[in-house]
Amino acid sequence: MIETPYLLFLGDAPDRLAAKVAQGIRDWRPENAVGQYRMQGCEADLGLPDLDLAAAKAAGAKTLVIGVANRGGVISPAWKKILVAALEEGFDLASGLHNLLRDEPDLAGVAQATGRALHDVRVPEVKYPIADGKRRSGKRCLAVGTDCSVGKMYTALAMDREMQARGLKSTFRATGQTGILITGDGVPLDAVVADFMAGAVEWLTPDNDPDHWDLIEGQGSLFHVSYSGVTMALIHGGQPDALILSHEPTRPHMRGLPDYQLPTLEVLRDTSLALARVANPACQVVGISVNTAALSEDEALECLSGIEARMGLPTVDPFRQGAGRLVDALAAM
Amino acid sequence: MIETPYLLFLGDAPDRLAAKVAQGIRDWRPENAVGQYRMQGCEADLGLPDLDLAAAKAAGAKTLVIGVANRGGVISPAWKKILVAALEEGFDLASGLHNLLRDEPDLAGVAQATGRALHDVRVPEVKYPIADGKRRSGKRCLAVGTDCSVGKMYTALAMDREMQARGLKSTFRATGQTGILITGDGVPLDAVVADFMAGAVEWLTPDNDPDHWDLIEGQGSLFHVSYSGVTMALIHGGQPDALILSHEPTRPHMRGLPDYQLPTLEVLRDTSLALARVANPACQVVGISVNTAALSEDEALECLSGIEARMGLPTVDPFRQGAGRLVDALAAM
Repeated sequence: MIETPYLLFLGDAPDRLAAKVAQGIRDWRPENAVGQYRMQGCEADLGLPDLDLAAAKAAGAKTLVIGVANRGGVISPAWKKILVAALEEGFDLASGLHNLLRDEPDLAGVAQATGRALHDVRVPEVKYPIADGKRRSGKRCLAVGTDCSVGKMYTALAMDREMQARGLKSTFRATGQTGILITGDGVPLDAVVADFMAGAVEWLTPDNDPDHWDLIEGQGSLFHVSYSGVTMALIHGGQPDALILSHEPTRPHMRGLPDYQLPTLEVLRDTSLALARVANPACQVVGISVNTAALSEDEALECLSGIEARMGLPTVDPFRQGAGRLVDALAAM
Repeated sequence: MIETPYLLFLGDAPDRLAAKVAQGIRDWRPENAVGQYRMQGCEADLGLPDLDLAAAKAAGAKTLVIGVANRGGVISPAWKKILVAALEEGFDLASGLHNLLRDEPDLAGVAQATGRALHDVRVPEVKYPIADGKRRSGKRCLAVGTDCSVGKMYTALAMDREMQARGLKSTFRATGQTGILITGDGVPLDAVVADFMAGAVEWLTPDNDPDHWDLIEGQGSLFHVSYSGVTMALIHGGQPDALILSHEPTRPHMRGLPDYQLPTLEVLRDTSLALARVANPACQVVGISVNTAALSEDEALECLSGIEARMGLPTVDPFRQGAGRLVDALAAM
C-alpha cells in the first residue's frame, strides 16, 4: 500500500508520452496528485502546480512517484540528487521501472537511514496463497481482450469512475504496475510465481457487499501465446460474474507476434465464457469495449454500430463515449 | 543440469511411499541409480545395492539425490551428518524439498568450501525468455488432464520408454520436481514467474529433428482453478502437435476443490484442442490415458473399452497395458 497523495516526478521527460504513468494518475486519481516536479528540459506538463520538495511536503504529499519512463526503464543518474533529497525530506518513493529502487545502493542506504519506504511496484510484496476456488460474496467484472494492450485497464477505470458518479459501490482492482501506481495498491500479476497467480487474484478481490463490484484490470489475452497463462489465472482467480470483451479493430496481428492473427469477437466470447463458467457458472458476457483511437469519429461510430449489431451486446469506446452503457449492463444483471 | 548417475538417499523413510521420488528414478532411469543409502530404521527398499559413500563413489555416483519426502518437506537434522559427509566426499546434492539445500548454512558452507553444487530443483536456475510463439522444428506431445495428478507424468514417461524401445527419437521433458530429478534436467514450471512461463516451455522444447518427439510433462488442468494458468502456458509454449487426454475415473471432485466437478473427456478434448490450435493449427487429440489404479482388472478393462467406444480414440492405462497404442497413434500422424 503506497501512501497518498503523491508528488508526480516527471524528471527530464522528453515528451508527453514518456510521462504516461503520471498522466494516468492525474487523469484517474487527480485527488492523489498534489503537484508535479519537472527538471530542467522536461517537455511534459500535466497542468498540475510545479512544486519543489518543500512545497509538495507542505501541500501534504507523502510519496514521490516516478511518473516517467525512459528507454530501458532505468533510473537516470540525473534524477538521483532529487530522489535522495526527497527521501531526506520525508517522502517515500514509488516506481514501476524495471531498474528497481532497492537495487540502487544510494537510494537503499538513504531510505534505510531515514526510515522511508521504497515501493517497486513490479515486485510482489505479499506472500500470496494458492487459490482455493471458494465462492466469494460481492460481484466481479473482468475485461478480456482479443489481444494485449487493447484498452482493458482503461475500460475498467472508466467503469469504476461511472459507477462512483452514480453512487454505486465499486473498486478498481489493479493487476499491473501502472494501475498499482494509479490506485496505490494491487497485485503485479505478471511478476507473481506461477503457482500463486490465481490465489493472488482471489486475494485481490475478497468477499464484499452483495451489491459491490470489483472491476478487475485485465492482462494479456487467452489468444496471446506469451501471456495467456496470466489471463487464465485472472479468469479463474477472479470468478467474474461479468465479462467485457475488449478489442482494437485496426491491429494487423497479435502484438509482437507477426505470425498470429487476432481471434474474432465471437471466438473470444465463447472461449472466455466457457472457461469463466468453470469458476462461476453464472458468468455472462455483458458488453464490448472497442479502442477506436486509430479511427476517425465517423469510422469509429460505424465500427461500433457494426459490432453491436453483429454481437447483440452494448458496444462502446469508453474514451469517446464514456462507460455508461457498460455500467447499465452490469446494473441490469 | 544435475550430474548423473545418482546415489539415492532414502534417509529414515518410514515407508515405501515416502521414497516415491527415489522410486521414480529407479523405475524410469535405472541407469541413473547406482545404489541406495538407507539410515537405521529406514523402511523403504528399492532393491538396489546398499552403498556407503565410499562405495557409491567407487561405483561412479556423482550426485546424492534426496529421494525421500517427510511431512513438511524439511531437511531432517538426522540427515545432516550424511549430507555434509557426501559433500566432503565429492558428491553434489540434489533435492526437490520445499526446504532448500541452499538455505541450510552448514550445507551451503561446506558446498562452497568443497566446490560442490547444491541443486534445489524447485527453484528455476535459468533466466527464461518471454515466449515468441515462433514455430519450431520437431514434434511435441503434451498430456492434458481432467484434473491434477491423474497420471500425466507417468503417461509421458511410459511413451518415452516405448519410443526408445522402438528406436524412435524422443525426449521426456520434465516440468516438475520429480520429473527433473528423474531425468536430471527440466523446468520447475510452477515456480517460474508468470510472464516467463510460456517462454520457459519454449526454451525446454527447442528446435529438433523433424522426426523427433518431445514428450512434455503436463501440469495442473485447464479445469483446476488453482493451476489452470500453468496448464495454459504449457499448451501455448509447448505448441503441441499431439494431445493425450488423461483421466482418473473414480475421483469425486477436482483435487482439493470439493465444490468443483471434473469436466467430461469431451469438454476436455474440445477446450484443449481449440486453445492448442492457437499456437499450432495442426494439433490433434490422438489418444487417452486413464489411471485405473483404483479399479479391479475387470472394471478397468470395462472402463477403458467404454471410453474408447465413446470417444473414438485409443484408450489405455499405461501402467497396466503399456503406452504402445499411444505411440502407435503418434507414429500414425
